[in-house]
Amino acid sequence: MALWSSRFSTPMAPATLSYSETTDIDRRMLAHELWASLAHLLMLCACGILDEGRGREIAAELLRMMDQAEHGDFKLDPALEDVHLNVESRLIERLGLDIGGRLHMGRSRNDQVVTDSRLYVRDALLAIGRLLIGLVSALLDRAEEQAGTLTLGYTHSQAAQPITFGFWLSAHASALLRDLKRLSDALETVNLCPLGSGALAGTSFPIDRRLTCALLGFDDILRHALDATSTRDYMLETASVCATCMAQLSRLAEEIVVWSSSATSGLKVSDAYTTGSSIMPQKRNPVVAELARAKSATAFGALMEILSVTKSVTMGYSSDLQQDKPPIWRALDVTSETIGAFTGLIATLEFETKNAEDACWRSFATATELANYLTSTQQRPFREAYDLVGRLVRHLESHAMTFRDANVSVAWLAANGVKMPLEEFVSSVDPRRAVERQTSTGGTSPEEVRATIVALRDQLGRNEARLTDVARRSELALAKTRNLATSFLKSELSGVELSREILAS
Amino acid sequence: MALWSSRFSTPMAPATLSYSETTDIDRRMLAHELWASLAHLLMLCACGILDEGRGREIAAELLRMMDQAEHGDFKLDPALEDVHLNVESRLIERLGLDIGGRLHMGRSRNDQVVTDSRLYVRDALLAIGRLLIGLVSALLDRAEEQAGTLTLGYTHSQAAQPITFGFWLSAHASALLRDLKRLSDALETVNLCPLGSGALAGTSFPIDRRLTCALLGFDDILRHALDATSTRDYMLETASVCATCMAQLSRLAEEIVVWSSSATSGLKVSDAYTTGSSIMPQKRNPVVAELARAKSATAFGALMEILSVTKSVTMGYSSDLQQDKPPIWRALDVTSETIGAFTGLIATLEFETKNAEDACWRSFATATELANYLTSTQQRPFREAYDLVGRLVRHLESHAMTFRDANVSVAWLAANGVKMPLEEFVSSVDPRRAVERQTSTGGTSPEEVRATIVALRDQLGRNEARLTDVARRSELALAKTRNLATSFLKSELSGVELSREILAS
Amino acid sequence: MALWSSRFSTPMAPATLSYSETTDIDRRMLAHELWASLAHLLMLCACGILDEGRGREIAAELLRMMDQAEHGDFKLDPALEDVHLNVESRLIERLGLDIGGRLHMGRSRNDQVVTDSRLYVRDALLAIGRLLIGLVSALLDRAEEQAGTLTLGYTHSQAAQPITFGFWLSAHASALLRDLKRLSDALETVNLCPLGSGALAGTSFPIDRRLTCALLGFDDILRHALDATSTRDYMLETASVCATCMAQLSRLAEEIVVWSSSATSGLKVSDAYTTGSSIMPQKRNPVVAELARAKSATAFGALMEILSVTKSVTMGYSSDLQQDKPPIWRALDVTSETIGAFTGLIATLEFETKNAEDACWRSFATATELANYLTSTQQRPFREAYDLVGRLVRHLESHAMTFRDANVSVAWLAANGVKMPLEEFVSSVDPRRAVERQTSTGGTSPEEVRATIVALRDQLGRNEARLTDVARRSELALAKTRNLATSFLKSELSGVELSREILAS
Amino acid sequence: MALWSSRFSTPMAPATLSYSETTDIDRRMLAHELWASLAHLLMLCACGILDEGRGREIAAELLRMMDQAEHGDFKLDPALEDVHLNVESRLIERLGLDIGGRLHMGRSRNDQVVTDSRLYVRDALLAIGRLLIGLVSALLDRAEEQAGTLTLGYTHSQAAQPITFGFWLSAHASALLRDLKRLSDALETVNLCPLGSGALAGTSFPIDRRLTCALLGFDDILRHALDATSTRDYMLETASVCATCMAQLSRLAEEIVVWSSSATSGLKVSDAYTTGSSIMPQKRNPVVAELARAKSATAFGALMEILSVTKSVTMGYSSDLQQDKPPIWRALDVTSETIGAFTGLIATLEFETKNAEDACWRSFATATELANYLTSTQQRPFREAYDLVGRLVRHLESHAMTFRDANVSVAWLAANGVKMPLEEFVSSVDPRRAVERQTSTGGTSPEEVRATIVALRDQLGRNEARLTDVARRSELALAKTRNLATSFLKSELSGVELSREILAS
Repeated sequence: MALWSSRFSTPMAPATLSYSETTDIDRRMLAHELWASLAHLLMLCACGILDEGRGREIAAELLRMMDQAEHGDFKLDPALEDVHLNVESRLIERLGLDIGGRLHMGRSRNDQVVTDSRLYVRDALLAIGRLLIGLVSALLDRAEEQAGTLTLGYTHSQAAQPITFGFWLSAHASALLRDLKRLSDALETVNLCPLGSGALAGTSFPIDRRLTCALLGFDDILRHALDATSTRDYMLETASVCATCMAQLSRLAEEIVVWSSSATSGLKVSDAYTTGSSIMPQKRNPVVAELARAKSATAFGALMEILSVTKSVTMGYSSDLQQDKPPIWRALDVTSETIGAFTGLIATLEFETKNAEDACWRSFATATELANYLTSTQQRPFREAYDLVGRLVRHLESHAMTFRDANVSVAWLAANGVKMPLEEFVSSVDPRRAVERQTSTGGTSPEEVRATIVALRDQLGRNEARLTDVARRSELALAKTRNLATSFLKSELSGVELSREILAS
Repeated sequence: MALWSSRFSTPMAPATLSYSETTDIDRRMLAHELWASLAHLLMLCACGILDEGRGREIAAELLRMMDQAEHGDFKLDPALEDVHLNVESRLIERLGLDIGGRLHMGRSRNDQVVTDSRLYVRDALLAIGRLLIGLVSALLDRAEEQAGTLTLGYTHSQAAQPITFGFWLSAHASALLRDLKRLSDALETVNLCPLGSGALAGTSFPIDRRLTCALLGFDDILRHALDATSTRDYMLETASVCATCMAQLSRLAEEIVVWSSSATSGLKVSDAYTTGSSIMPQKRNPVVAELARAKSATAFGALMEILSVTKSVTMGYSSDLQQDKPPIWRALDVTSETIGAFTGLIATLEFETKNAEDACWRSFATATELANYLTSTQQRPFREAYDLVGRLVRHLESHAMTFRDANVSVAWLAANGVKMPLEEFVSSVDPRRAVERQTSTGGTSPEEVRATIVALRDQLGRNEARLTDVARRSELALAKTRNLATSFLKSELSGVELSREILAS
Repeated sequence: MALWSSRFSTPMAPATLSYSETTDIDRRMLAHELWASLAHLLMLCACGILDEGRGREIAAELLRMMDQAEHGDFKLDPALEDVHLNVESRLIERLGLDIGGRLHMGRSRNDQVVTDSRLYVRDALLAIGRLLIGLVSALLDRAEEQAGTLTLGYTHSQAAQPITFGFWLSAHASALLRDLKRLSDALETVNLCPLGSGALAGTSFPIDRRLTCALLGFDDILRHALDATSTRDYMLETASVCATCMAQLSRLAEEIVVWSSSATSGLKVSDAYTTGSSIMPQKRNPVVAELARAKSATAFGALMEILSVTKSVTMGYSSDLQQDKPPIWRALDVTSETIGAFTGLIATLEFETKNAEDACWRSFATATELANYLTSTQQRPFREAYDLVGRLVRHLESHAMTFRDANVSVAWLAANGVKMPLEEFVSSVDPRRAVERQTSTGGTSPEEVRATIVALRDQLGRNEARLTDVARRSELALAKTRNLATSFLKSELSGVELSREILAS
Repeated sequence: MALWSSRFSTPMAPATLSYSETTDIDRRMLAHELWASLAHLLMLCACGILDEGRGREIAAELLRMMDQAEHGDFKLDPALEDVHLNVESRLIERLGLDIGGRLHMGRSRNDQVVTDSRLYVRDALLAIGRLLIGLVSALLDRAEEQAGTLTLGYTHSQAAQPITFGFWLSAHASALLRDLKRLSDALETVNLCPLGSGALAGTSFPIDRRLTCALLGFDDILRHALDATSTRDYMLETASVCATCMAQLSRLAEEIVVWSSSATSGLKVSDAYTTGSSIMPQKRNPVVAELARAKSATAFGALMEILSVTKSVTMGYSSDLQQDKPPIWRALDVTSETIGAFTGLIATLEFETKNAEDACWRSFATATELANYLTSTQQRPFREAYDLVGRLVRHLESHAMTFRDANVSVAWLAANGVKMPLEEFVSSVDPRRAVERQTSTGGTSPEEVRATIVALRDQLGRNEARLTDVARRSELALAKTRNLATSFLKSELSGVELSREILAS
């Protein structure tokens, strides 16, 4: 029988339970449910709402359940709907209604579920943050190592200008650092305490929300009770962070898939991150990159799902809102798995430069440099220089030549009114020298790439510090909750002393 | 060791396997994988590609696996990546490489996976079709029963005109019949046989695709090998069917949630489809309807996910495409569970009419009827009549009166130049009589609602016949495959005879 | 002043009008609004609801407006909210309230707007259908022409097996034919007549819905009035058709972008479908393909938008539903523009085969063929043959050799226990001969590609006939409406005769 | 002829231009393009890349174009593709190639377009921020005014507990403040300067990116050239902000629509924010709220569109990326229009309390209070109290009574073992007194609502300051650019002095 069944005349249809129960989804929040329940209990005792005797018995039982949960010995029963009623029912079963039935004063499942899920999402974001730091580090390490390795850069997927592998790798590091920043911003939204909001309107019990907030390591209370129990923008912001990060990773994935395909790219995925075909014996398929490309869609779909779930739902908890968790679990999982898989893949990527120079010549990748030369050295308007070089390229291409045919080129230029010494022509259009000349801030010259890497490492350090601080406070708060509960349990602390201890920083 | 590992120098990273293996997802297709393998085997023997002796041993083993799978005794091993390599590895393990290693001629995982998933989706769509027929029937049964029960109809969520509960219920039946039609259309797209397409380009083995097509109960072969192995439009069409159907159900859900909330609506959800609150003892929450409303988003998100997965993937199988299955499983599950839950909820809905009449009067729901009267009986232009009635409503409302104040109304009309006998006024604005006058085809009058129900039942019958035909052919084909395999196994049939038997209809 | 303002005491806020008016969106439906109004008028006269004298004046004015609209002389006034009130207001302005104010009997904006938009979507789908037929034809024409042009086929974006350009082109034709089928299915959903449903519940005027249905060229009436005015599944189905088709085109686009990028692919986009760079003089960017790839997202977003718009909206018209039009216009536009642009791009694609053979050799693209040979000719189990060939590939690759090094290969095979005559080895692994051996139904051999093209052309013909039939009936119905209106206007027909003429087929 | 056409042999197909040109979309960025061009010019002169003589002529022309643009006299020509080539072509046309053709040194359309669109999005976010501040203020003002107005609160859309209108209004203010926070976070991502990144890899011209950054009022340069030109996460973050905010507004909209529908809610939308029906003279439809509910979907679809556009696009500019602008324009427009419309709607909402008390009694909305009383005063376990009250509710309901039947209630309690003085029972269950007892932090008691409003106003002030700072710096930078250009033009400043002035803060 459900704990809430006293008013009902017809029993629940089996379809109602199977359609609405969430134990499979809630499983991940069991540890958080127990932590929050223990914090709520200590607050009730500290405020004198629950007597210390009964409070100690409940504390002992909750600590026992925490141990069981850690050892995987606490299975949730689907017949009890969700994690909240599972814990409360077990308390009542163990301690009797007169004790176990007193924990639910001044709270409701509506504030419990957002407390638990905020704690869970906080953990998950911190874990993703750590993984992202690892991936950015790996990208920067490889970038530094390959700062001078020439390759062909593309725009519109067509040969554009010579760049270095270090430039390419650090570009992704630079982009992912903003994902890390967004993740930290989202943590600020997530890390607020809704506990104490009751069903929708607060409570008439004389609770003290500062105490539970402190014990759960939140930055602050989320004050407005209706807002705290009804809104899910922290889920939306988290899902947006995942989707945006995965969108970036899908682009890295595409590059790896496409470049693996080409004999001339110089990029090779390690065997460890490829698989074979069931019938084509020659194949090495970059499945990790392919899957990462596809799995971005999982994060996109999850975001769309949560937006649609919350659309047009009136304030005050509705069951609709329980449907925020399946997609957010999915988004968090796919993001952390993908970042993890990529880190190893990047660390083992193999780079060759041997075909790159040829590819640069063949594709006239230094045409812009020639135009720049005509502009800066010969004082021609850029548009005139551009036009001239365009016609030269067309001429050479139609004769199956490249800029390597320097004499022909210089002759053509002369015939078109431009005098250019052969050595200056060669210097202009040589891919390696062209790369070295891109020294503008953030450009692809090896020295500038190294300077950019230093700047990005500095940014990474600051982001890491921000995350570490949240993580440390969360861990301390959990330890404090268990310690205070243990002291209280042993009667080393009265309710009044509890209150003081909780607020002591 | 993976079956395809001969060419690789470095072993697969653990992350590659865990990130790419699909056994948990593929589990649902084990039965279909075995059926398709058996069909492929019979074809190989019928075409003389595989000798009968070895063929019989493989057939025996596949039939044994089918039994195991049916009894839940065939667990997939994640180390073997997917359902295909699990089955093939087991064959080789049991029968040795010289026998088990010969099944994979003329096929590839690329055509296998689309064969299996088309078979699975066919089953799932048929199951949803049956459930949908059940829900439409329940709606029509209740509609017939409530064809004369007055209630207030809304537009813009504001009181509009009096209608009947039967009219409302049959509107949803009418809409859902189009979902059933779309489901049948999607089945036509799904029910095509890709087996025999090889990895991407067909095969040089002299296979006969007509044989596997017939044994698997498909409508026809999907001829083009590259199209057959690369496209996923059948998944997109299926996901669209689910999303569109769930969008309709979310609207029914919203109506049930909102009307349950109102003291005057006359609609009550049975206790069996509600739950209580953890702290508010008076509550009856229509959770099934709330969840159905939210779970439509699961189907929307799944559709968006598959669209994004397939976007910009080059033809020729890519691993991206394996990510079509998690979302389609989710979409199919949520659609079938929701339709199932709704059928019981509709069958037990309670209807009261007692407050409806009051609500109609209070909201001037028959104002249009009065304007129609002035137009048709008194030959006034509709716009003039509309304007007059609008002013009358404003007058009555500002004096806290309704059309029930017939004398006042008639006096006001007279003062504004309209002579109208009291009894005709009363007849015009009485909600029950107004409903009875809506006799245009498809209108809300009880007799017209009953006629519409007859027409909808006819449509339902035709849709049902279409589905039943596909289901029957699928079942017959499975039986035929098992029977022919058994006969072949017992040497009752040669390869040549097999071919003839397979094509015999 | 709005036509509906008689009951209101405060004027509309300017923000209300600017936020809710839809004239800019409705503009496209002006011709359909006028057609539907004329049909409604003829029905009112045919049923004796409106007297012939006034009816003739309205008919004349509507015919005049149709001419003005065709000449772009009918501008919608935003202050009049929408296309319906624009037309009705103009009628009243021209003919006075006593005549112009009588058209709106037995109809409502709620059934008008779905009538107009179904007519518009029908036209748009027919136009897209015609464009799609053109694109499929272009693909098949080029496929036939290039049925024997060798190129390298890919799976996982990695070299897989040799194929022909004709095989690749016809794969897209094959896929797009299913989009054409879905488009025809959607037309069946769209082509139903909601006119006569009133605001939500039908009407008490003695209308005859068969007459308007016939005049507007619909397949049948959409009977249930609440369903007809409230549901938008025809928009969802249309948007799904667009999104699914665009998803396919994004894949073709990706292939063109990626292959244009490679020196060895043999594919070149005509200059006419590329643009240059503002600073890189050598560039030829395949912008049409890039944009097509991106614009698929427009159709995806539109579908998601309409799903979200309709989610959880109660039955009975709500203003939410007017938001179906901006996204569906967008989806229809982007789909037709993209198909149009692709048709020219495909017709002018340039194909070269010179590098393809090299690429096939270099990538061991015929390894599967060698394994098949060992299986079929030498009776080895496929798995053993696969393993052997995999090791051979690894051996050759590590020595920078290919299958072209036939003597080395044959020696290695011999050393590994496989005797194989040199000429048979060469025949096995030669890309051109390998392609010719893929003769299974739907395979890549030139002769089979030609057979597949014949089958696809047959399918195209059947789809085309289906579309043409709908188009023809729509055109005839419009002509009939105008002709009957003109005859009626000239008093050549009485109301009773009108009714008979309308139903005469 | 396109400026880039020198290399092309075939002219562009008309479809290529119409499919790819963006002048209609770019129009909004004309002012930003001119500002950025002027900043780039001053930098070129300050760095000695362009001579002062020619620089002054270009500066004069750009200032002239700015004036023209402000007066609407600068129309973009679609034949010139985009805003960048429109401006450059006009420069060349006016000043000749020798002068106008020199501006494009050291920049590319790839860094120009992100510079322009970041400037535009910065403006748009600032405008939305200001509107959001206005809406939050309006909500808080009305909340303060209605802090004591009783109404019925809901969970699961069913009667839950008595609350006040002030509590409800301030809940939305509390939620929207987090949208404002996210908007400020997004501004940090947007407000970085990509100009100077060249096509993808920087430039060999000796530019100084600090100068253009300062002149454009950006917070900092976005250093990495490939990241700066290729990523669109600032668009995704902006779209997420819009979608999340619109999701919240859709919930407010739903409440207004649903509550407007009910005779007992006490909420009435002003006539100014409603419209009428074309056939039902009694109607007042809350169209603004309905549309706001629907238009949230526009922001959702736009977000999904941009995610899909950017998915799997390789780094280095691709034309795909130009498709970020149509959806982001749409998302920004719909968000600002909706916030604007809501502000007036909230300011004019009418509240009545007369039916609220009845509704609270009828729905047993104070049942939780009675359970709390039995728990706190009578020391019963909460679960026992809950159970008892649930049974009492069932008893009263089955006799058509409420808690107002205090004597019956007290007698029933006594018969069930609970002694409770009549006056204490009445005090427990009286809705007004129950509301006053919800004094926990963030609860619904009027005094606590007022305290919460104070806290929210404080938060609003801090958010406003953050936005104002960005706005002020942007305005100053624009003024500085124009002033320096004017001084430079008049030869009051040399290039070297320019550089010093630009960096002076």
